Amino acid sequence: MKERKIEIMEVCPRDGWQNLPDVIPLEKKKQYIDHMLASGLKYMQICSFVNPKVIPQMADAQEVTRYFLEKYPDRCFNALIPNLRGAQTAVDCGLREVSFVVSASESHNMANVKRTIAQSLAALDEICEKLPQLDVTLSIATSFGCPFEGAVPPEKVLEMVRHGVDIGITKVELADTIGVGDPMQVYELFRAVKERYPQLQLLAHMHDTRNNGVANSFAAALAGADVIHGALGGLGGCPFAPGASGNTATEDLVFLMEKSGFRTGIDFPKLLEAAKEMRAEVPGNYSGHQIMIQSVPTGA
Amino acid sequence: MKERKIEIMEVCPRDGWQNLPDVIPLEKKKQYIDHMLASGLKYMQICSFVNPKVIPQMADAQEVTRYFLEKYPDRCFNALIPNLRGAQTAVDCGLREVSFVVSASESHNMANVKRTIAQSLAALDEICEKLPQLDVTLSIATSFGCPFEGAVPPEKVLEMVRHGVDIGITKVELADTIGVGDPMQVYELFRAVKERYPQLQLLAHMHDTRNNGVANSFAAALAGADVIHGALGGLGGCPFAPGASGNTATEDLVFLMEKSGFRTGIDFPKLLEAAKEMRAEVPGNYSGHQIMIQSVPTGA
Repeated sequence: MKERKIEIMEVCPRDGWQNLPDVIPLEKKKQYIDHMLASGLKYMQICSFVNPKVIPQMADAQEVTRYFLEKYPDRCFNALIPNLRGAQTAVDCGLREVSFVVSASESHNMANVKRTIAQSLAALDEICEKLPQLDVTLSIATSFGCPFEGAVPPEKVLEMVRHGVDIGITKVELADTIGVGDPMQVYELFRAVKERYPQLQLLAHMHDTRNNGVANSFAAALAGADVIHGALGGLGGCPFAPGASGNTATEDLVFLMEKSGFRTGIDFPKLLEAAKEMRAEVPGNYSGHQIMIQSVPTGA
Repeated sequence: MKERKIEIMEVCPRDGWQNLPDVIPLEKKKQYIDHMLASGLKYMQICSFVNPKVIPQMADAQEVTRYFLEKYPDRCFNALIPNLRGAQTAVDCGLREVSFVVSASESHNMANVKRTIAQSLAALDEICEKLPQLDVTLSIATSFGCPFEGAVPPEKVLEMVRHGVDIGITKVELADTIGVGDPMQVYELFRAVKERYPQLQLLAHMHDTRNNGVANSFAAALAGADVIHGALGGLGGCPFAPGASGNTATEDLVFLMEKSGFRTGIDFPKLLEAAKEMRAEVPGNYSGHQIMIQSVPTGA
């Protein structure tokens, strides 16, 4: 395969850390994120602006965001925001990019954010209208299956993408929230969105619940996804999706993408070092591989 | 994707158990294998006929083989054999199918079996000549990369396949012994073999060393591989390949194949039960997922 570029967005500071039982001290967060960024990662979902009573890990989200925006002006930082207030906080921190999650499944949306899909989309409309300086990524949860409803018709996802396009959204993320997707389905849905809306930047957030995250992420990349989400070490999961566990590990993605001929721009040994450091100090359920020796030239 | 069949070969009794520090008692082996077969698995690599001083786990290989050949006459059992003597033992047990491993890399072949490739192929020739009643699968180790030599030219693999075809071999297995392959490479090599020798049955043995086993197995299946190797629970590795660890878990493969529209003929809940039982009683490094609820209809 001739060389292609793919971007990796590191989501560990949000999706990896948010559900840990213990809050990581601010100085340690800075240290870990610094080392992640030392690998050359260009994209990072660095926090969510949520109620710290609900997600204590995110209590220092503003400090973390301001610190890194200043230290790494050349990187793209993103925050998850659940509502207009979170979006405003993002703006106040100097952040330009946020992600807003709506589920393709009504039941999951209700369980996750206590709103109907229509209410969520209305909230999205309001954010885009009142804060036009923000670049809002529409993240569609349960794009590949729902823990309550089972199969999710692709049309529901496409309708939601259409809504986003209609209000000027330029980035759409398809998320396999519970890691139940398969590569054929992932490939087809990304192709369907790509073909209808070639102007969109497409992101893939594939959970690794059934050890299918790497295969599904690869399928998304082949289908033309521009950005693949990974969590260093493979930490993470969705608290409102029963049985879900684990993001796809960034190191697994970077190895496989590079080996296949996709250029990520990431220094693999440095990435592994950042993972090793975090794993040694932060207890959690890690799945990423840890083999420094790649044994074969990348892209061969 | 329209429905396609794929066969899964369970290799845990050989590749999973062979390197465990403790020998599993015969009665327990029978219990675990019985429960694996209860899931409907049609193909199994049930043992290797090797020197029990080197691999103590295989000391009861003959009893295990005879027992299951008699109890399940409708299944396809296979044993790994390193030489003519092992092949003869297989015949004496009533086994009709064996696998013989040659590495595509000289260094790895020497480290693994203490022979040059030419010597290994001569041994293969002798087995096929002296025991024509045996169906010998040529298993090509390091087909996708070598721990000592790095990249392995596809031509070396194809030469070896050619040799096998010339002496009447009908089954060829491409093995990613150290789990360094990527889906593009795997797809291309399986396609290359398939196109040159469409009459062969192709098998894929993809290690999961870098969490790439599922993606690579899926690529092999798409490329036309007929049989995919999996080890229940994801146990296993090659003792002579430094840093290698872990087969691809059968349960991960069955989930993803079924979900994608490949018919495996395997009862997933029964497979998970067999894994659960073994994992509870046999200490080891397991990687397979354990989620019983599939959440979505398979093949949707």
